[in-house]
Amino acid sequence: MSGMLDKIKSTEDIKRMNLKEMHYLAGEIRELLISSISQCGGHLAPNLGVVELSIALQYVFDTSVDRVIWDVGHQSYVHKILTGRKEAMMSLRQYGGLSGFPKSEESIHDAFNTGHSSTSISAALGIAAARDLQDQSYSVVAVIGDGALTGGMAFEALNHAGNEGRDLIVILNDNEMSISRNVGAMSGYLNRLRTDPSYSRTKEEIETHLMRIPGIGPNIARAAGRFKDLVKYLMVPGIIFEELGFTYIGPVNGHDLEEILPVLNNASKMKGPVLIHAITEKGRGYEPARRDPGTFHGVGPFDIDTGKTIKKPIKTYTEIFGEYMVDRAQTDPRVVAITAAMANGTGLSEFAARYPERFFDTGICEQHAVTLAAGMAKAGLRPVVAIYSTFLQRAYDQIIHDVALQRLPVIFAIDRAGLVGEDGPTHHGIFDLAYLRNIPEMTIMAPSNENELLDMLHTAFTIDGPVAIRYPRGAGEGVPILSDRQILNQGESKVLKKGPDLAIMAIGRGVSIAREVAVLIEEKGIGTLLIDARFVKPLDTAVIRRIGNKYQKLVTIEDNCLDGGFGSAVLEVLAKNAQNIDTLCIGIPDEFVEHGKVELLFDYLNMDAVSVVEKIINRWPELLGYSRELGLLNFGKN
Amino acid sequence: MSGMLDKIKSTEDIKRMNLKEMHYLAGEIRELLISSISQCGGHLAPNLGVVELSIALQYVFDTSVDRVIWDVGHQSYVHKILTGRKEAMMSLRQYGGLSGFPKSEESIHDAFNTGHSSTSISAALGIAAARDLQDQSYSVVAVIGDGALTGGMAFEALNHAGNEGRDLIVILNDNEMSISRNVGAMSGYLNRLRTDPSYSRTKEEIETHLMRIPGIGPNIARAAGRFKDLVKYLMVPGIIFEELGFTYIGPVNGHDLEEILPVLNNASKMKGPVLIHAITEKGRGYEPARRDPGTFHGVGPFDIDTGKTIKKPIKTYTEIFGEYMVDRAQTDPRVVAITAAMANGTGLSEFAARYPERFFDTGICEQHAVTLAAGMAKAGLRPVVAIYSTFLQRAYDQIIHDVALQRLPVIFAIDRAGLVGEDGPTHHGIFDLAYLRNIPEMTIMAPSNENELLDMLHTAFTIDGPVAIRYPRGAGEGVPILSDRQILNQGESKVLKKGPDLAIMAIGRGVSIAREVAVLIEEKGIGTLLIDARFVKPLDTAVIRRIGNKYQKLVTIEDNCLDGGFGSAVLEVLAKNAQNIDTLCIGIPDEFVEHGKVELLFDYLNMDAVSVVEKIINRWPELLGYSRELGLLNFGKN
Repeated sequence: MSGMLDKIKSTEDIKRMNLKEMHYLAGEIRELLISSISQCGGHLAPNLGVVELSIALQYVFDTSVDRVIWDVGHQSYVHKILTGRKEAMMSLRQYGGLSGFPKSEESIHDAFNTGHSSTSISAALGIAAARDLQDQSYSVVAVIGDGALTGGMAFEALNHAGNEGRDLIVILNDNEMSISRNVGAMSGYLNRLRTDPSYSRTKEEIETHLMRIPGIGPNIARAAGRFKDLVKYLMVPGIIFEELGFTYIGPVNGHDLEEILPVLNNASKMKGPVLIHAITEKGRGYEPARRDPGTFHGVGPFDIDTGKTIKKPIKTYTEIFGEYMVDRAQTDPRVVAITAAMANGTGLSEFAARYPERFFDTGICEQHAVTLAAGMAKAGLRPVVAIYSTFLQRAYDQIIHDVALQRLPVIFAIDRAGLVGEDGPTHHGIFDLAYLRNIPEMTIMAPSNENELLDMLHTAFTIDGPVAIRYPRGAGEGVPILSDRQILNQGESKVLKKGPDLAIMAIGRGVSIAREVAVLIEEKGIGTLLIDARFVKPLDTAVIRRIGNKYQKLVTIEDNCLDGGFGSAVLEVLAKNAQNIDTLCIGIPDEFVEHGKVELLFDYLNMDAVSVVEKIINRWPELLGYSRELGLLNFGKN
Repeated sequence: MSGMLDKIKSTEDIKRMNLKEMHYLAGEIRELLISSISQCGGHLAPNLGVVELSIALQYVFDTSVDRVIWDVGHQSYVHKILTGRKEAMMSLRQYGGLSGFPKSEESIHDAFNTGHSSTSISAALGIAAARDLQDQSYSVVAVIGDGALTGGMAFEALNHAGNEGRDLIVILNDNEMSISRNVGAMSGYLNRLRTDPSYSRTKEEIETHLMRIPGIGPNIARAAGRFKDLVKYLMVPGIIFEELGFTYIGPVNGHDLEEILPVLNNASKMKGPVLIHAITEKGRGYEPARRDPGTFHGVGPFDIDTGKTIKKPIKTYTEIFGEYMVDRAQTDPRVVAITAAMANGTGLSEFAARYPERFFDTGICEQHAVTLAAGMAKAGLRPVVAIYSTFLQRAYDQIIHDVALQRLPVIFAIDRAGLVGEDGPTHHGIFDLAYLRNIPEMTIMAPSNENELLDMLHTAFTIDGPVAIRYPRGAGEGVPILSDRQILNQGESKVLKKGPDLAIMAIGRGVSIAREVAVLIEEKGIGTLLIDARFVKPLDTAVIRRIGNKYQKLVTIEDNCLDGGFGSAVLEVLAKNAQNIDTLCIGIPDEFVEHGKVELLFDYLNMDAVSVVEKIINRWPELLGYSRELGLLNFGKN
C-alpha cells in the first residue's frame, strides 16, 4: 500500500480510510516531514509526535467547520499537510512560503493563529462562547502540550472553562517536553498519571473492582459519606482536571489510532468540557529526533542519515552570553540564571550543568520567572533572566511592577531581539526597545558586536538597578574576542568614525547597517560621523547635544519598531534641547513583518544599506552638493 | 482591658501577649481601621478580614528577619499598625503619607513591595532560594487571597515551588472574594474544601476512622496498592495543592487565634512548602462592610454610623462607559463584555445584571481575558474588554500576539488611565499610550470629555480591528451629555480654538490642562491654536503637517509618560515630514509617581496649567515679544 498522501484530494478522503490505510498515511507523512524539514529547517520532533493525533482529528472532525486550535502551533505541519498544503511544504518558513505556524490567511482549516505558548484554551473558550451565544453548532478543540500547560494563562483558562461548562475538548499532548525537558510539580503529577497503575485505571474499572471485594464498597461508602466521591478520589486519574470541572479521559496512547479514534469520537459527543490526556513521543519515527528531541525541537537543515546539522562557522551572541555566564558564576557567587523553558535556546545549558543549584528553569512561565528574579535580587543575589524578546512581552507587568518599581538589580538577557527570520511575525523581537524604554529606572543596552555584549554584561553587574541587554538571534559579527573587559560609563556612546556632513547614530544590529551605509556614502564624498549609541536608556544626551550643535542632518538606525523606538528616544532628547535638526529614523515600520530569512526581510523593509543610502539621498539631495565640490557626479533625486 | 495597641512599643511586645490580650488588641485595631479609613478612604474590608492573621504572624514570626509578603498588599494596614506605623495611619494614602501598600522604603518589616495581584508566591520562592543559596536561615511567608490565586502567575509559582521543595509557607487567605465575588472552578473547589466534611477532615482523623472499620483498612490497601496514597485520596483536603507538592493544612478559622497560632507555629517548623488554608471574612467586625464587602473593598471617606459614602456630584467616565454598554447591548447582539474581577470598578455591574449570558468575569486573569476576547472576535462577536490601564500591562503579549496580529475587532476599554491618585505608583496608568502605540493595527483614542468617550465607543464598533480607548479615573468634565452620537473619522483631531502664535496639541485629560493653559496664555496676549488630538494612533498627520507649515512652536500635553508617549509620536511625525519646529512635550517625566490626590500630583510634576505656562514662557521668552506689541508687560525669564 502506498501513495496514501496522494489520494487525499480533500479532507473528506481521510474519513474514508481504514485503520491500515491511516497507518500507511502516517508513515508517508513522517517521510515528508523528515525530507522537507531536513532541507528547510523547522520544528521536526513536535510534528513527528502528533502524526496520528492529526490524522485522528481529521477523521473525527471537519476542520473547515469545527475549530481546532494548536497551542504554540509549531506542531501544525501535519495538519497543514492533511489540509491541502502538502505541495507547499518545501516552501515552509521561507519568504513568501508556508508559515511555520497556523495561519487563518493560509487556510480555512486554521481556526486561530498561534505562535506563543498557552493561548489555545482561552481562544477555544472564547470561540465556544461565541458559538453558543450565536446558537451555532460545531466542535471546538484545543491541542496543548504538557509544556504549554505549565503557563499560568492555560491554568486561568482551564479554571474558567471548567466553571463555564461549555462543550469544549482539550487534548493534552503529553510528551514530557516543552522545548527542554519539562519542570514543575505539574509535570510530576502528569508523570504519576502516566506510570502509576492506581492513577491510570478508568473510573469504571476501579468502581467494578472495588465493588467486587466483599463488603468493601458499601463500607467505604459509609466511611466517607458518598460512594461516588470516594471512588473519584480512589481511582483519581486526572483529579486536578476533574476538580477544575473537566471530564478527564486518559491517559491514552496518542500513537495508537485504535485507541485514540474512539476516544475522540466519544469526546465529540460529550457535554461540557473534556480533557483527553494523550501520551505521545516527540521525534517518533526518526531515531535521531527521538533520541534528542531537544535539538530536533526546532532545527536548521540537517543530514537525514546522520541527523547532523551544519554548524555555523561564527559564534552566536547566544553562545557568547552562555560562556560569559559560566565564567562569571565562577568568581561571583551571587550570580544565578533563570530561564523559562529555554535553557538551550538562551545558551544556558553549560551553566545549568556546571551550576545546577544556581540555575532555575521555571517552565513556560515568563511572569513567574521575572518576579522570582525580583525576589532573589531583593534577598541579595544577582539574577540574570534570559528570555527571548518576543516572550518577554509576557512579563511586561512584572518588569514594571516587581523589578523596576523596587529598583532591583535584575539583569535581563534578551535574546532573539529584532527580526528573527523564519519564525515570522509571532516571534520577531521588534518591540522591546519601545516597551522597555518608558519604564523608569531601567538601563537598556544593545551591543553591536561580541565584545560589546561581553562588556555590557560586565557593566550590568556594576549597576544597582534593572538592566536589559538585547541582542539578535544567530551569528555575531565574527570579531576577535578581546580578553579584558571594559566597564562602560552608563549612557556613553562610542564614536566609530568622524565626518562633517551627516551624523548617524545607530544601535545594536543597526550599527552594522550603519557601517555599510557610511562606507557607501563616503564613496559619494559625504563625510559621516558614525556613533554606536550602545545605550538606549540612558541615552547619551551629551553627544546628541553636540550633534544638535554641529550637524543639520541626523540619521538613526535600529533593528526595532520605529514607533516609540530608539530613534523616537533621540527625537525626544533633541526636542527637549530645542535642537531642531532634521532627523531621518530608520527602523521597522508600523507593521507585522512576515517570515523569511533575516537578510530578505531587511531588503523587503528597505533597511539594507543600499536602500538606506537611497533614503538619505532622497531626503537630502543637497548632500550631493558636497560631493560635487569634490568632483563627483551628482546622481540627483530618484 | 484596654490600650493594648498603646502597649506595643516593638513587635516583641506582641509575642508577650496572651490570647485574651490579643483578642482585645484585635478589637482596638478594628476600631482604628474604621476610624482612619472612614476619613482617608482605603481598603477597609480586606483589612478587617486579616486582623487576627496579622497578629498571629507577629506572634509566631519576627518580620524584621522573617519575610512576609502580602499579595496585592492592600490588606497590609494591620501589619503596618503592628510594626510601628500606627501613628501614621491618619496619613494613609495621602501625599507624603503612608502608602496603602507594603513598602520596603517605609519599614524593614515590609519584605517586598506589592500592589498588583498574584506575585507573592513567586517573590517568596525567589527569596527562599536566595536564602538557601546564601546559607541563611529565616522563614518566608506569602499571604495570598483566593482571588489572587486564580491569577495564572500564582499557579506558575505554586507549580515551581512545589517542585523546588524549599521551606516556604503560603497562607491562602480564603474569603470567597477578590474585589468582586470569586469566579472559576478553583473557587468551587475551595468552597468544597470549606463546606464538605469529607474534604475537611484531617489526614489523621480519616486514617484512624478507616482503620477502625473492621477489615476495611487492609482491604483498601490491597485494592489500591498503597495504603498511604489511598488515604491521601480518601481524605483529600487540598489534593490539588498536595499534588503540586505542598503540604496542605486546613481549612482553619482565620479569626480564631487559638486555632491559627499553633498551625502557624507548626508550619514554621515544617520542611518543604506548606499551604495553610485560612478561612476569613471580609469586613469582619463592621457590619456595613461585612454585608457589602464589594463596596467596602476599597472605599472613599464614609460615615461610620451608616456606612454611607459621599456620592460624587459628577458622573464618572466609568459610569458613562457602563451606561453606554447597557444601551449598546440592547441593539447590538454581537456585543459581549469581559472583565478581570472588576465588574463594579469598570462600571459593568448593570450590564452583568441585565445580560448575564453576555458578561464574562474571568477572575484576576487579564491574560486569559484578552485571548478569550480574541477567540470571541474571531468567531463573530464584538467583545469589549474593560480592564484598568495598570492591570492591562499583564496582558501585553496577548494584545500583540492574539488580538493585533490577527487584526481582531476587540475593543479595550481602559479605565484608570493616567494618574490614579491615592493608590500610587503600582496603580498609576501612565504607560499605556507608550506600550500600545508601537503595536501595529491598533487604533488608540483618549477622550477629553464624556461626549467624546461616548463617540469613541460608538466609533470603535465601526472599526474592523483592535481599538483601545483610555480614560481617567473619577469624575468626567461635567459637560451635558448630547443625545446623538458621532462616528469620528479615524485619526481626525478637533480644533478647539484658533490663534497665530503657538500651537498646543493635547490628548485625553491633557486637553483640560491645555484649555486652562490657553486661557492663561491668551491673557498674556499670546494667540493659541488648541487641538484635541483624540487619536494617538493613527495620529492626525494632516493637522500636524499644517502645524509644521504654519507654526514655529508646538506644545504637546498628555497624562501619560513622556518617554514613548503621545508627544513622542508627534515628534516622529514631524521628523518624518522633515518639519523641524520647536516642540515642548508636557507629560509624566521618567519616574514612578508617588501616591496622593491627583491634583497634588499634577502640581508636584509641574503639570498644572500655571506651571505649564511658565515652562512655555521659559522655553520661548520671545513669545512675550508678541505681547509687548499688544502693550502688555514682559515678565521675562525665570
